[in-house]
Amino acid sequence: MVEQHVEQWGVFEAAVSGPDTGNPFVDVTLTAVFRLGHRSCAVEGFYDGDGRYLVRFMPDRCGEWSYEISGLDLPDDERTGSFTCVPPAPGNHGPVRVSGPAFRHEDGTRYTPFGTTCYVWSYQPEDVRQRTLRTLAGSPFNKIRMCVFPKNYAFNEREPERTPFPRDGAGFDLTRFDPVFFRDLEAQVLALRDLGVECDLILFHPYDRGRWGFDRMPEEVDHAYLRYVIARLGCFRNIWWSLANEYDFMREKCADEWDRLFHTVEQHDPYQHLRSIHNGTRMYDPDSLRLYDHHKPWVSHVSLQHWDLHLTRGWRATWGKPVVVDECGYEGDLHQRWGNLTAQAVVERVWTGTLLGGYVGHGETYRNASGEIWWSHGGDLVGGSPARIAFLRTVLDRLPPGAAPLEAFYDAPTTGVEGQAYLQYFGQHSPGVRQLDLPAGVDFHVDVIDTWEMTTQRLDGTVSGAVSLELPGRPYVAVLLTAATPPA
Amino acid sequence: MVEQHVEQWGVFEAAVSGPDTGNPFVDVTLTAVFRLGHRSCAVEGFYDGDGRYLVRFMPDRCGEWSYEISGLDLPDDERTGSFTCVPPAPGNHGPVRVSGPAFRHEDGTRYTPFGTTCYVWSYQPEDVRQRTLRTLAGSPFNKIRMCVFPKNYAFNEREPERTPFPRDGAGFDLTRFDPVFFRDLEAQVLALRDLGVECDLILFHPYDRGRWGFDRMPEEVDHAYLRYVIARLGCFRNIWWSLANEYDFMREKCADEWDRLFHTVEQHDPYQHLRSIHNGTRMYDPDSLRLYDHHKPWVSHVSLQHWDLHLTRGWRATWGKPVVVDECGYEGDLHQRWGNLTAQAVVERVWTGTLLGGYVGHGETYRNASGEIWWSHGGDLVGGSPARIAFLRTVLDRLPPGAAPLEAFYDAPTTGVEGQAYLQYFGQHSPGVRQLDLPAGVDFHVDVIDTWEMTTQRLDGTVSGAVSLELPGRPYVAVLLTAATPPA
Repeated sequence: MVEQHVEQWGVFEAAVSGPDTGNPFVDVTLTAVFRLGHRSCAVEGFYDGDGRYLVRFMPDRCGEWSYEISGLDLPDDERTGSFTCVPPAPGNHGPVRVSGPAFRHEDGTRYTPFGTTCYVWSYQPEDVRQRTLRTLAGSPFNKIRMCVFPKNYAFNEREPERTPFPRDGAGFDLTRFDPVFFRDLEAQVLALRDLGVECDLILFHPYDRGRWGFDRMPEEVDHAYLRYVIARLGCFRNIWWSLANEYDFMREKCADEWDRLFHTVEQHDPYQHLRSIHNGTRMYDPDSLRLYDHHKPWVSHVSLQHWDLHLTRGWRATWGKPVVVDECGYEGDLHQRWGNLTAQAVVERVWTGTLLGGYVGHGETYRNASGEIWWSHGGDLVGGSPARIAFLRTVLDRLPPGAAPLEAFYDAPTTGVEGQAYLQYFGQHSPGVRQLDLPAGVDFHVDVIDTWEMTTQRLDGTVSGAVSLELPGRPYVAVLLTAATPPA
Repeated sequence: MVEQHVEQWGVFEAAVSGPDTGNPFVDVTLTAVFRLGHRSCAVEGFYDGDGRYLVRFMPDRCGEWSYEISGLDLPDDERTGSFTCVPPAPGNHGPVRVSGPAFRHEDGTRYTPFGTTCYVWSYQPEDVRQRTLRTLAGSPFNKIRMCVFPKNYAFNEREPERTPFPRDGAGFDLTRFDPVFFRDLEAQVLALRDLGVECDLILFHPYDRGRWGFDRMPEEVDHAYLRYVIARLGCFRNIWWSLANEYDFMREKCADEWDRLFHTVEQHDPYQHLRSIHNGTRMYDPDSLRLYDHHKPWVSHVSLQHWDLHLTRGWRATWGKPVVVDECGYEGDLHQRWGNLTAQAVVERVWTGTLLGGYVGHGETYRNASGEIWWSHGGDLVGGSPARIAFLRTVLDRLPPGAAPLEAFYDAPTTGVEGQAYLQYFGQHSPGVRQLDLPAGVDFHVDVIDTWEMTTQRLDGTVSGAVSLELPGRPYVAVLLTAATPPA
């Protein structure tokens, strides 16, 4: 047997043969235990069709891993095996984890989400998918929200070729899965991984409205589906689990059901990928129905839809978890309110939320003759916000390690490191002068940044202590103050 | 004795003589009862200095009123008297009252507040005050917020010549009032009245910070002060009582104290002028300190400071009272966040809040060499928002009677009358197309309105039923649909 080498946080896969009669999706429960020294990790395998069963595993430590498969009657050389986990290749930092109100990869590298949304890009023709991947490669986005299930919604009427469940007459056989569908989905997730893009995989969504019925399956089917998805896709380090998009629009599911679905994901995902649930209109308002309780320990981070990013500070304080505002309104010109923000408004929201410590997502919804809209289908980006978000990333990269929201500058969103650097953003505010009480004894360079024009103007000299800066008196301006000499 | 004629909601005043020894402000409690037919109304009089005592009364019905004064030993022809109340002159519609979520004058005329703020304009030199009044006369504003007490704050450092209390050495005699100060204040309130401008009189405010101590007087002084103010100024039909501005910044007063101050105003104002209390940063947020409970019956309407006018619908629903957002951020270029919004942002907030059924106030804070800033001193307006607010008023005037927020158009602020007219505003949203489900059988004219450029473009022909309107795809656009023929 050839010794396999798998990089850390890569994928090991063992294929074994078994029965193809009856319903192997239901009849066989395949598990495997992977061991390294005193560690062991149990994972579920899955049926891939045609008598083929797979076990996948993402090793998180280097060394010689062994494994043992159970649930099928297998010859010894299939039942057990081993592989060598080797150090990760450049660019592989492992899965993303929560680190206080922020995120880090498992190797400690800071990860700052700049997400976008292409709900059903994986359902599009291959040429569109290739364009989507090329567009992402040239974009500032390092996270994408996408759905497992197809979408029945405005601009999304086409019947999908395949779905997670095989067709059965006019309906679907909910006791089986379609391995061809999943192999294809996996290829897209891997393509994202290779671009360094996190895949925020939406497990349920309301944009079905009974057409296929995936939004209203029996609860035991929901749980079986989750286990199958986890067994197949959990091994990919760029996976995040989004329990649902706009969960509150799924009238068929009650609050307890969401708890139980979270529990299934929590119990069956050996890697404990990030878990969230994204709201529609239900928000944190005492006079409306309450948001899903994000204090619950199985919610790893907050995934919100809201238009007012000035509330980010409060959300961080309320939940003490990273706050990802995946939808703040999309840049576009659609009829629909959620899809016709100006680029200026989107960029203003992204800057505001970012400097208050949130992670604000992007989407684009311009009408066009082809009906191909980025927010759902992917393809091409034509709007004004991606370049500005890329510019924001270059500005953030100028901040020293440990940059975080600074509360002392409460009257304008500010991120920085006390005594070293301050990045302050004024949005729709247009001060003609700005007084700052900087530390005395440290000389700061002052850059006046036009976040829309993407220009940076370094002012002459340096400032220190109490200063009064002349500013352009127009909107969308930021200032970056950086210590001219590193502190002693 | 010459028969006096006073117009309805005008001011009747009786002057009587009494002691000028001791402390007449404390020693004498002057009251009068006014009678018309079976009605009687008790009012308090007040000491005006130099042995002169006044009783003022605002009659609310036409006819022959008689009165009787008590509290002083007076000859019969001073103790009793009468006057004739005659119909109001044009432009006099009586005090403003609450009418559901809206306002009406007492004669039933709809009153829609378009307020501005000049906190201490009455403390400025006479030439500035005259300019303020001229500016108001040419402005769209029909309400002003102004303080009784002087202001100690940025751009407001000058020592006032007079204050409500007479000076006493380095401090003030809190057992007396300064009639000269009040006569002057009354003249300003009357000048506003004659311009048709409601006077939202701020009774307490935090911008003293102990310099004069009017923000931290003994509670019994607060109550005596309120009674004196009511006795002098309650007779002016354009008075609104604002218990405080940014009440939550007045750390010396507790919640119970505000209740008691409200009670004093409620009990001593025979005309029941509007009563409100304006917040600083304390808002309706479950994680912060709560807003003063606006459900309390003595609060006539909601007076808010908030930046997000999209919340207006919720505020209306929560309190069931008119919602006046007196401060949504001021147009200007100051250092301070509250004073450096772009005109575009202010106008967007005013349109949004207005079409959601709120009443959004204006303020202007541009730096200038003189240090004279509209928001505090009055003088001249130089910003871009007043003309646009005037334009908004002309658009609103095109709506039929009974226009109100229409919930069915929840995804964009809309005001109108079902089947007759719809005014919908998109703000920072920039739809290139807009689908509307209008009543069939009614033909509507379509005006596309650029709220910033102040242009109105009438589209050719009419529309009816389900329509798809091509729109400019830029921000700050509204559409007005008006029935081409009145409904049968």
